[in-house]
Amino acid sequence: MSGWSSPHLLGMRGLAREAIEAVLELAARRRPHAEAQAPPLGLLAGRTVANLFFEPSTRTRTSFTLAARRLGAEVIDYAVAAGSTVKGESTVDTARNIVAMGVDALVVRSAHAGTPVLLARHVDAAILNAGDGAHEHPTQALLDLFTLREIFGEVRGLQVLIVGDIGASRVARSNLWALRTMGAEVTLCGPPTLVPRAFEALGARVAHRLEPELERADAVMLLRIQHERHRAGAIPSVREYARLFGMTAERAARLRPGAIIMHPGPIHRGVELMPEVADGERSVVLRQARNGVAIRMAVLELCLEARRRG
Amino acid sequence: MSGWSSPHLLGMRGLAREAIEAVLELAARRRPHAEAQAPPLGLLAGRTVANLFFEPSTRTRTSFTLAARRLGAEVIDYAVAAGSTVKGESTVDTARNIVAMGVDALVVRSAHAGTPVLLARHVDAAILNAGDGAHEHPTQALLDLFTLREIFGEVRGLQVLIVGDIGASRVARSNLWALRTMGAEVTLCGPPTLVPRAFEALGARVAHRLEPELERADAVMLLRIQHERHRAGAIPSVREYARLFGMTAERAARLRPGAIIMHPGPIHRGVELMPEVADGERSVVLRQARNGVAIRMAVLELCLEARRRG
Amino acid sequence: MSGWSSPHLLGMRGLAREAIEAVLELAARRRPHAEAQAPPLGLLAGRTVANLFFEPSTRTRTSFTLAARRLGAEVIDYAVAAGSTVKGESTVDTARNIVAMGVDALVVRSAHAGTPVLLARHVDAAILNAGDGAHEHPTQALLDLFTLREIFGEVRGLQVLIVGDIGASRVARSNLWALRTMGAEVTLCGPPTLVPRAFEALGARVAHRLEPELERADAVMLLRIQHERHRAGAIPSVREYARLFGMTAERAARLRPGAIIMHPGPIHRGVELMPEVADGERSVVLRQARNGVAIRMAVLELCLEARRRG
Repeated sequence: MSGWSSPHLLGMRGLAREAIEAVLELAARRRPHAEAQAPPLGLLAGRTVANLFFEPSTRTRTSFTLAARRLGAEVIDYAVAAGSTVKGESTVDTARNIVAMGVDALVVRSAHAGTPVLLARHVDAAILNAGDGAHEHPTQALLDLFTLREIFGEVRGLQVLIVGDIGASRVARSNLWALRTMGAEVTLCGPPTLVPRAFEALGARVAHRLEPELERADAVMLLRIQHERHRAGAIPSVREYARLFGMTAERAARLRPGAIIMHPGPIHRGVELMPEVADGERSVVLRQARNGVAIRMAVLELCLEARRRG
Repeated sequence: MSGWSSPHLLGMRGLAREAIEAVLELAARRRPHAEAQAPPLGLLAGRTVANLFFEPSTRTRTSFTLAARRLGAEVIDYAVAAGSTVKGESTVDTARNIVAMGVDALVVRSAHAGTPVLLARHVDAAILNAGDGAHEHPTQALLDLFTLREIFGEVRGLQVLIVGDIGASRVARSNLWALRTMGAEVTLCGPPTLVPRAFEALGARVAHRLEPELERADAVMLLRIQHERHRAGAIPSVREYARLFGMTAERAARLRPGAIIMHPGPIHRGVELMPEVADGERSVVLRQARNGVAIRMAVLELCLEARRRG
Repeated sequence: MSGWSSPHLLGMRGLAREAIEAVLELAARRRPHAEAQAPPLGLLAGRTVANLFFEPSTRTRTSFTLAARRLGAEVIDYAVAAGSTVKGESTVDTARNIVAMGVDALVVRSAHAGTPVLLARHVDAAILNAGDGAHEHPTQALLDLFTLREIFGEVRGLQVLIVGDIGASRVARSNLWALRTMGAEVTLCGPPTLVPRAFEALGARVAHRLEPELERADAVMLLRIQHERHRAGAIPSVREYARLFGMTAERAARLRPGAIIMHPGPIHRGVELMPEVADGERSVVLRQARNGVAIRMAVLELCLEARRRG
């Protein structure tokens, strides 16, 4: 487990290549235990993981829960309704209280960027960021790296095209940091209202038209478009967005041989992905979901081991 | 386990007598492990069951959860709020995504008839129907058969009277198929607005008055009346319904010696069942709930075994 | 386990000193297993505990869940939405139905005083009161006793000052009974609208000003003030309440050396407790949360053992 030393996974920004490699390698070893019918491991027996979700997210929560259970850990759901506080209690107090009950790790989802960092500073537990505002969603980026490596052998040198609401997307941000660290080239694509030029300073190319980008991409990662974006005037309409940036069968046919189509889910069929593409050969959407469990097994194990050591 | 070959339990319609017998026999063997203080079995250790409930149902979900846990399986709750979709995602995509995380069986509850059949066709997992619209609720029918057999020894030849909102009831439909296959005689009873004559074509007698039916029934199965039915004009009032079709102590006294009173729950005391009847000697309501866990143990085991075999 | 003989924990009122001692002693033995990284025990393997919460309470529910899981029991959450009934079903019927599924113990939270007593009378399971209306919250009082004993060695003769909305507080009531039984002196403090003189008949001193009480207290227990109390006219404003009864650093400095500050949580920083006090040396708030798990392990074990013996 060399390469990993932190009891927390807060974001991909600043995470060393060696640390990422440690996660990917352990995830590969745990991958068989993330399958249906696979026997669970007892590596985290006696440990307790609490899902502290200030925003609802059945999918990510389920993936972390299955990961923890397959390592033998106990899992507690600590869902916090609507507002991001418990009856006026501060977020740090809520977390400290849960941890005082004998919890080793908190998996945190919050609408506010920075909540996991805040908790890592003030709470005595391993903190795993399961998405904080528009900031980071590191396990998503790690599972995407894992999927790319599984398919292409190597992430270095890959051309990755991320399409969608980049400015508001924690998935895009975490993937940008992760892919750059691992040596991939990243192009961010979408209308100017959703993809600010400022991202160029972070090492990405920015493109406002999809067609010219198709032929050079090894992987196209499509992100969800929120209807709210339409109401806020950032896009003329969801239909118009789909026409300009949706992955149609025709566009998919123009991708390189072997190029893949990714989506963090849940898929909005007919908007980002046309049904025939979602179910087509290039789509690795379900493989991403499958790999997510292995990645979360690895990060739970690495963070709790680092915490135990010191 | 001869007699059962499907990885799915979608409905009672078309299910062979031998398949039903296989469930009932296995449930009888598992019955002692469905009790309080009973040691759990490890037969499904390493398997994962996900409750995918598009409609809320604490009761059926709890029964399936206890059944799965007592067989050693891991259980994940995947509750989907209000609308029957996750942020615009299709039902099939939601299910595929969960299954990709390493889930072996989906227990599905939906307001839409046919959802379990749809999922069985498109998702690679065992599908267990926990109630779909007004279509079927097969584990309820199986636990009712189990209860009848436990009490009467044999279902063949029994006179079963089902009273209530037959037209809208998945419980009535599943029981009708199940009871007919097992050789019982079924009478459906309620006001003409709730019990259409069309059910005669399915092998049932239809009756619109309760009194004349009481003396011939071995078992009376009372179904819930929804207040909405009153608002929709199908019954003059809940009070009027109770007066005509509620099981009072007086009516219960006119039943045959040994005749039983069943209800799938939750009971609406004072409407379908008067309190003294609900708590009376003929009532087997709690026995039904108890048997439900054994039945769900049996169907989980049979479906997952059929799936494992291929 | 001498000293404890009941399969239920309904309240502190009338609970004998020997019974309380039995809980505290067993909790002390279980305390190491209530920690993070502690190996779970198998003492309740095969037993099933259901959380039957008619009022939401993530915190107490989590504490009971962790306690049960660390003893090897299965835990089922049976959350009942908004209203205190399931689709018109009676509370007793709901409980009986769950218990029929093979449940050994019900942990009950209800907005209605007396619900646990009602269930203990009519349902065949161990009943643990997790808070009923303004009546009792016995595990909170037990964990407070445990914390006091841990710190002071002995509860007898301690001066305990409880500040807040005493009239509406089940925590205050349970603590009053518990502390009196164990020989502590109790002063209840707050504005006359929140602390009726009638409590004197129960063996407490009543005080309407905080300042004169500070110097004699060994422990100050601050209770939550609900904003609703302001709207109902019982206090002029939350700010005014905080000014008169909030624990400021200045007030904390006037406490005896060694005096402690307690709060059942969730803390309302800036109202009952100023931030510097909540995080200060006298505060044992997190220790209370930690001890809560050990106490709940003990009561689950004692009640289920009493039930098993019959």
